[in-house]
Amino acid sequence: MYSVRPHEITLPFDPAETADDARLVFIGRIESPWKTRADCPKNLRIARERSQPARVHVAEPWRQGLSGLEDYAHIVLLYWMHEARRDIILQQPRHSLEPSGTFALRSPVRPNPIALATVTVLAIDQANGTLDIDAIDCIDGTPLLDIKPRIASIDDMPG
Amino acid sequence: MYSVRPHEITLPFDPAETADDARLVFIGRIESPWKTRADCPKNLRIARERSQPARVHVAEPWRQGLSGLEDYAHIVLLYWMHEARRDIILQQPRHSLEPSGTFALRSPVRPNPIALATVTVLAIDQANGTLDIDAIDCIDGTPLLDIKPRIASIDDMPG
Repeated sequence: MYSVRPHEITLPFDPAETADDARLVFIGRIESPWKTRADCPKNLRIARERSQPARVHVAEPWRQGLSGLEDYAHIVLLYWMHEARRDIILQQPRHSLEPSGTFALRSPVRPNPIALATVTVLAIDQANGTLDIDAIDCIDGTPLLDIKPRIASIDDMPG
Repeated sequence: MYSVRPHEITLPFDPAETADDARLVFIGRIESPWKTRADCPKNLRIARERSQPARVHVAEPWRQGLSGLEDYAHIVLLYWMHEARRDIILQQPRHSLEPSGTFALRSPVRPNPIALATVTVLAIDQANGTLDIDAIDCIDGTPLLDIKPRIASIDDMPG
């Protein structure tokens, strides 16, 4: 568990204990070269610089959902940062002079710790439910929530 | 509820009833010009072409988390497609000759119906928890899960 740093502000309640507006199913896991949080790159850019591929494992009932994904070179992954606190609303990143609101940061610490990565698909094996990808910024075993095709007309910066 | 079309395949269970690997909190709502699913653009590109702005409402306990977001011109929204089925794994889009796996589509119908939009911020009012945005592709009242700053080195197409 992260400890709270000076200047950080926590909520008067912990969403990890109180949240129940909707419920998620884990559809697989991400196999990553990073075995601990200390070892894990802080973001996808840094992860990519380390040139270590990763593998997404999709569990059996969901594998038919991969059909057609071979037409896309890039995908968006949503995954659940299961080790992250959810109750810090103002955070003090190590690299910053001032604290920032949680929604102005890409930190895994957030009310709903859903992370987002745009990655390159190197190979897909639908029968075994595996996707080899170029890089990832989460620890080994992180639960997978969703896979989407990346579509430039939707996902590029508008304008 | 969507009905199942010819060639679509449903799971032998419904994640809407069985999912409980993690729990979400709704941190606000999206105020949108689209009042019904029939009226709602099918994706963000089409929504943007209609030139109708929208507004994100962040509920009171979370508003401090917006601090610092004014430094970003573009944000990523995650929201919960609360009217979508979760049990269709092979889908037949109207515009396609062949069915596609759910993970090869941006359809709201998916095991975890989390949608993703990259939008332009027109104005932020942190005290009132509102963000005016250029466009959105969900119906009025859609629950909000997360706001992230869009960061080119992370979110652009790799390479």
